This record gives sequence, C-alpha cells and structure tokens, in this order.
Amino acid sequence: MAVDPRFFRFLGPVALGDLAAVSDAECRGDGTREATSVGPAGNARAGEVCYYDGKKPPAEDDVSKAAIACFISAAFANALPEGVAALVSELPRHAHAMAARKLVQFRDWGDTERPHTPTNIHASARIAATAHVGEGAAIGERTVIAPNAVIGPGVQIGKDCVIGANVSIQCALIGNGVKVYSGARIGEAGFGVMPGPSGAQDAPQYGRVILQDGVTIGANSCVDRGAFDDTILGENTKIDNLCQIAHNVVAGRNVLMASFAGISGSVTIGDGVQLGGRVGIADHVTIGDGASIAASAGVFREIPAGQTWGGVPARPIKEWMREIAWLHKQTSSKRRKD
Amino acid sequence: MAVDPRFFRFLGPVALGDLAAVSDAECRGDGTREATSVGPAGNARAGEVCYYDGKKPPAEDDVSKAAIACFISAAFANALPEGVAALVSELPRHAHAMAARKLVQFRDWGDTERPHTPTNIHASARIAATAHVGEGAAIGERTVIAPNAVIGPGVQIGKDCVIGANVSIQCALIGNGVKVYSGARIGEAGFGVMPGPSGAQDAPQYGRVILQDGVTIGANSCVDRGAFDDTILGENTKIDNLCQIAHNVVAGRNVLMASFAGISGSVTIGDGVQLGGRVGIADHVTIGDGASIAASAGVFREIPAGQTWGGVPARPIKEWMREIAWLHKQTSSKRRKD
Amino acid sequence: MAVDPRFFRFLGPVALGDLAAVSDAECRGDGTREATSVGPAGNARAGEVCYYDGKKPPAEDDVSKAAIACFISAAFANALPEGVAALVSELPRHAHAMAARKLVQFRDWGDTERPHTPTNIHASARIAATAHVGEGAAIGERTVIAPNAVIGPGVQIGKDCVIGANVSIQCALIGNGVKVYSGARIGEAGFGVMPGPSGAQDAPQYGRVILQDGVTIGANSCVDRGAFDDTILGENTKIDNLCQIAHNVVAGRNVLMASFAGISGSVTIGDGVQLGGRVGIADHVTIGDGASIAASAGVFREIPAGQTWGGVPARPIKEWMREIAWLHKQTSSKRRKD
Repeated sequence: MAVDPRFFRFLGPVALGDLAAVSDAECRGDGTREATSVGPAGNARAGEVCYYDGKKPPAEDDVSKAAIACFISAAFANALPEGVAALVSELPRHAHAMAARKLVQFRDWGDTERPHTPTNIHASARIAATAHVGEGAAIGERTVIAPNAVIGPGVQIGKDCVIGANVSIQCALIGNGVKVYSGARIGEAGFGVMPGPSGAQDAPQYGRVILQDGVTIGANSCVDRGAFDDTILGENTKIDNLCQIAHNVVAGRNVLMASFAGISGSVTIGDGVQLGGRVGIADHVTIGDGASIAASAGVFREIPAGQTWGGVPARPIKEWMREIAWLHKQTSSKRRKD
Repeated sequence: MAVDPRFFRFLGPVALGDLAAVSDAECRGDGTREATSVGPAGNARAGEVCYYDGKKPPAEDDVSKAAIACFISAAFANALPEGVAALVSELPRHAHAMAARKLVQFRDWGDTERPHTPTNIHASARIAATAHVGEGAAIGERTVIAPNAVIGPGVQIGKDCVIGANVSIQCALIGNGVKVYSGARIGEAGFGVMPGPSGAQDAPQYGRVILQDGVTIGANSCVDRGAFDDTILGENTKIDNLCQIAHNVVAGRNVLMASFAGISGSVTIGDGVQLGGRVGIADHVTIGDGASIAASAGVFREIPAGQTWGGVPARPIKEWMREIAWLHKQTSSKRRKD
Repeated sequence: MAVDPRFFRFLGPVALGDLAAVSDAECRGDGTREATSVGPAGNARAGEVCYYDGKKPPAEDDVSKAAIACFISAAFANALPEGVAALVSELPRHAHAMAARKLVQFRDWGDTERPHTPTNIHASARIAATAHVGEGAAIGERTVIAPNAVIGPGVQIGKDCVIGANVSIQCALIGNGVKVYSGARIGEAGFGVMPGPSGAQDAPQYGRVILQDGVTIGANSCVDRGAFDDTILGENTKIDNLCQIAHNVVAGRNVLMASFAGISGSVTIGDGVQLGGRVGIADHVTIGDGASIAASAGVFREIPAGQTWGGVPARPIKEWMREIAWLHKQTSSKRRKD
C-alpha cells in the first residue's frame, strides 16, 4: 500500500542528498534525484524510499527494483538492485524514520480545526455534540457516534454503524454495519521498536485499519494500524472486550475472539476461526480456516485448517489433554506410594 | 428480569403474525394475539416472546408456560407448552432478534437530547462540564462525575460515588460509595454471537449491570450487561484494572480480583473469593465462598468453597505444585544421565 | 516521598487527639501534638502519621523515629520507637485512612474550575478544544493533547510529548518526548485493599507516576500511582497496548513490554529487560538487567540479569523447554504402547 493521503500529508518531493543530510546517512548515487514518499522494502514503488535492516545481504525480492533509494548498512550497500540508490547508515531503520519526516507528516488530531465537515456526513447520521469528528472524515447513513468519541481526520465510516462512547478511531476505513463498543481504540500506532542512537525508539507506522462489513469490536479492545500495509478484519468477524490486534494482522470472515485475545504482528487468521478466552498468538503465525484454539493457549506455530489446539505452547488438543492426564496420574500414584 | 423501561423503549404491542412476518418465521397459533416484550425462554412472562435453540426438544422447564410465543425449529415446535405459540424458524435466535426490534428499542446515547436532567441530579453532586449525563439518569448526593465521562440514559447512581475520567456507563444501577476508575466500561453489550443468514451476528443484550454498595471497578475494566438477566457484583467487591466481567456473572461480597481477571458469561462467584492476576474462568462455572485462585490459573470447572486452586486447567494447588516439582525432577535427573 | 501538594491539598495541622477521635483509635501520648501529613511507616518524616499492620512487633527500621504517631494494634503499641505516639486500633491501616482524610485531600477533577491555566501552558503546545486540563497543570513546548483527553490538576508534562485521544492522566510528572497513546490511564489509584469494619475497603494511594524522557505507553494501558512512593518508568521504556503497571513498580531504561504485561505492585525491573506478550510478574519480584521473559510466562521469583525465562511458574527457558519436550515424548510413546 502507498501511504494514504487521507491520513498523511505529503511534504516532498525532497532530493536524496537532503534526505541523507537529515538522517546522517551517506548517499551513494545521484543525490539530486527526488523522492516523494516512503514504502516497505519489498514493495516500494517509484519515488519511494525504503530501508533494509536484515542480517544477510538482501536477496532478489527483498528490495523492490522500483524504489528510488534504500537505507542500508555499508556492508550490504553493493547488493541493492541497480537503480536503487544506497543511503548508507549503520541504523538504517532509524535513519529512514528521520528522512521520512521530510516526506510525510501524520495528520494528528491537531490537524483538525473544524469539528465537523458537514458535506461528508450524511444527514441521517447522529453525532453526539461532544464527539469530535476530524477534517475530511466521512460518516454514512444512520450511523451513530456516541458522546466523547473521537474520529480522526480522513476516517471513513460506512452506514448503519454504531461507534460507542469514548471510542477513538484514526487511519481507518470502516464498512457498513460495524459496531465499535465503548473505549475501543482503532488505528493507533502499533508496537514497533527500533534501536536509535540513544536507546529504544518507536518505529513510525504508516498503514491503516480496514474493518469490513459487520465487524464488531468489543469494549476497550485495540486494533493497531499497519506498519506500511493494512491491518484487516474480514466480514462479520466478532472481537470481544479487551482484545489486542497488532499491526498487519489479517483475519478472515466470521472469526470469533473471546476476551484478552492477543494477536501479534503480521498474524494471518483464516475464515471461521474461533478463539477461547485469553489466547495469545505469536507474530507471523498462520491459523488455518475453521481452526479452534482453547482458552489460555499460547500459539507459537502454524495451526492447520480445521484443527483444535490448546496449551502453552499450543499443540493439538488431544496431545495437550493426554499430557495433562498422564502427568496427573504419575504424581497421584507417586503420592500413594510415598 | 423484565426488560427495564429506563434502558429500553417499548414499541408494541405487536401481533404475533406481524412478528412472524418481520422475522421470516411461520406462526403456528393465533397470529392476532399481541406480544409486548421479550424474555428468556425459561422465565418469560405474560406477553413476552422467547426463543429456544437447544439441540434436543425442550424439557419441562426450558420454556415458560407464561410466554405468549417462542421461536423454535420445526422439529421441536410440537414440544412447546400448551398456550405458547410456536414461531417456527431454522434460526430461532436470529429470528427472535429480528422480531425484538419491533417490540423494544435500546435507548442509545442519541436518545439523550438534554445534557442534564436537573431534577434527578442531587444539588451536592459535582458533574464536570464535559461529562455527558443522559436523559432520566439519576445522580446521588456528593457523587463526583469526572470530565468526559458518559452516563447513559436512565442510569441510576447512588450517593458518595466517584466516576472517573472517560468512564462510560449504560444500563446500570449503581449503589452508594461505588468507585469506577478512569476508562472503565459498565453496561456494554456482552459478547453473544449467533448464526445469522449471512454469517456471525451479535445477539442483542437486554439486561443490566448492578453494582452494589462499596464496589470498586479498576481503570479500563469492563462489566457487560446481562443478556436478559443482570450482571451483579456484590457489596465491597473490588476489581483491579483491565478485568473483564462478562454478561450474567453474579459475584458475591468482598470478592477481590487482580488485573486481567477474565470471568466468562454466567459464572457464579461466592463471597470472599480471591483471584490472583490474570485468572480466567470458563462460562457457567461456580466458585465457592472463600475460594482462592492462584495467578495465571485457567478454571474450567467448579471450585469448592474454601479451596485454593492453580494451573491451567486449574486443580487443587497442592496437586499443581506436586506436578510441577515432579516434572522438574524427572527432567533434571534425565539430563544428568544423558 | 512526601505527599505532593500539586496532587493533594493539606488540611491540617490536626491534633493527635482529634485524629484518634475520627478514627476510633486510642491516643497513647500527648494528644495535643499536631500532625501535618501522612507517610509510610519506614520513612515517615517529622509531622507525618503512619501505620503499622505487620504480624510481628515492628523491628528496628519498620517505623521511622521521625514519625509523630503510628496507628498500631494494642499488642505492639509498646514496641514503637521513643517519641512516636501510638494510635491504638485493631484495624490500623483503616484507622490511618480515616485520620488521613483530616490531613490531606485528593485534588480530584472537581478541583479544577478553570479549564486551562494559560501561564503554565507553553504557547507552542496544541491542546484540543475538548481536552480538559486541570488547574495548575503544566504543558511544555510543542506538546500535543488530543481531543477528550483529561489532564488532572497539577500534572506536569514536558516538551514534544503526544497525549492521545481519551487519555487520562493524574498525579504524574512526565518528561520530554513521552507518548501516551489513546485511552491509556496514568496515575489512577492502585489496587490496594484493606479490611474495614464492614468488609473490604480501598486503601488510599498518595504517590505519583514518573514517566521519564522518551517513554511510550500503549493504547488502553494503565500505570497506577504509588501508594506512598512513586511508580517510575525509566528513559525510552516502551509499553505496548493493554498493559498493567501496578503501584510502586520501578522499571529501568529501554525496557520493552509486549501486550498484556501484568506487572504487580513493587516489582523492580532492570535496564533493557524484554517481555513477550502477556507476561505476568508477581509483586515484589526483581528482574535483573537485560533479562528476557518469554510470552505467556508467569514470574513468581527473581530472574537474574541476562537470563531468559519462560513458563508458569517461570524458570530458565531451557528447563522449561526440556520439560515440555520430555512430557511430550513420554505421552507419545505411551500412546503407541497402549
């Protein structure tokens, strides 16, 4: 995904030499060429600057040939595709973040000076007087926005939605019939930490949240926006209270998650998956269609479609139950003998 | 409990034939009889329409003789008590929800046009200018409502309560000396998902939350309202931050729950029960008076009064500790031998 | 720490005899001497009243010689240091809380009548119209406060901070470059429950939260203020969404906590510690510098510096993994034999 102008303001174009200067990097290549935006290394488009911070030299598909430039360590600078300028830094992700500030600016709440933009808000929508609707946000037919909710600039909300009290939504595209219960947080920056020159720093998050038709988000749950791409919840997916959906999660349709689900970054969840209470899933794991995960499980690897797993680390539920029963039996007989 | 008119507006009476029409059901019986409200199958009162979606024919007490009608599958329609009209549907819960929209309407935030109703608010209550108090809500002596809190229509709050910043409360009756810390969510719809014609759908939630005298709810915790009946926390029960209390939970007096307690639907908790951090309890489980549950436990069955349990699945704490110690010993000696 | 006048109003001085009267205690010693504030037993200063509720007589350092008086049970009243008056009660902590109400008063949201105090707010700060800033709060250069955020009286926020939508902050001192994401709760009262004459009661919390430069707090996370002392997060410490940091936690620099971290009261965490998702740490435990804790762990005792632990109860990760593998092997072969 390209950076969405509804949520970020473009400040460029900026010459590569200038980007190198603000990020303390060395520009190898024509410093007068101009960049317009940022993108992820593998899919950067024309004009976009990316970074590479892998531990090996970049492979064929790791850095897009279309990128105008890539922040990279000196050791790997020669391994970039032809035509991609190297911006050499020993903290490539951090240097990229510094340069990005010259190219794109987040439209924060302060971007919004007019409380409502009437032309984008359907006459049948009911918006509480104490709700805040940012500039350029659109609200569909019959949608209700409760008191003290905060809708960020550029957010698109469909028809027949219910947005609860004290909810906040930013960087999000929301379908029809979506319910966001009180206190839920949609589109906040995900948890991405990078090393900076003086300690841990937050990696900027340029993506969005997509909630498809019929999604319900429970009270005080959080759905973070993607790092570059989007966090997506499919049609009729239902999330209970106090769940955490991290950046770049992609979940299918009719997924059910009970309270305290913790879905780490870039997890993929198939259609019809069901999670019991306080299930955790480690980052980049895939859960197949129709799988079930027992309450309290901690999932560290792929679950095939249709299977039921449980335990920490999670395993097929029969294995888990057999282990529990066996262990119990050993120690019970043990005790009798003692 | 009958549906509370402080939180729902009655739209009927409506003829059974008309309810069948809007819910795509078949009315077996006199379609001109009029329903007035909805109720749970086991306890529906005169004029109330219920649904039955069990997998066997309804037993003696499963459907109240007083109900005017019951949504039910064709297979079981003949098993209803005499005098209860069958509204036949293969999605009885969904059809009931459709029909319910003609009988009762949730008083959402938009129901409130006047910010305060001075006659219901005691002169000694202090309500922040940016708090929202819904129509018909009552606030007792010396109670303090912090900025940006949202009190829904009809909510009753006693005296000497403290309602924190950005709290939201709906469908709730709150006693005296209750504290609700910042960001807590009281009375949101519980997590009830039913199959609909085109995927998962939220089952409507008609009940309330009752917080008795001296209850404290921690920051960002959630207490959902009941499905039909009430979610109840007894006197002086103290809930830490980020806890989840699902619909229809009934907890006694002086219960203590540390952070991340996850109490599933219809759990019953006795007086003086103590929960360590992030304890989960599966739905419909009973915890006896004075029981203690160790941190991180996942409880899937009844805990007798006075006992201490731990582990996932939870078991008496001595068993759990014995198993941990035995397993550790086996693998330590194992290692030495290898 | 002495009680901070920015967050509490001093009401005294009050004669010890009067404090005894309001708390149903017996004053042994000169009842005309005057107390000015409250303090923790071990570190109470001149003029401060403390309590002692240990199960043995107080040892040498348990009660400060500087305290003016100490609530204590009759059995131990003679064991107080010379010069510290005994205020005898069988519920010393509760009696102390009663007396404290005559000495100090929390500056709640209602304390704030003027929405902004322009002199304390830097001209370059951007504060949303619907944000609430309490009396005496200070906001630094370029800091942004989003809509419907609530900043309590006396809160100090440095420069270049970002305070998200619907955040609430009280009793806190916040450095530069701090980010508090939407819905986070900073400075609420911690979970301290004491026995009262008619059941469980909340113990008052007199401390503060200190967030040092570069700290980030995730959406809907909670950081409670200290009981008497402070809850402190060191420079560049990064907390994900939906985490709970209890009263009196002290964490170092560059600590990373993933979602659902539950850090109990008085835990000490060293520099550079990393926590996977939903890690729980029991109260008063110490985690050494640079330790790592695997996702889902429940930590009940000290983790030495640099080590990686996992499991519930947490143990060195190799032990945990060995136990899991061994148990799996036993039950797999078992099954084959059966």
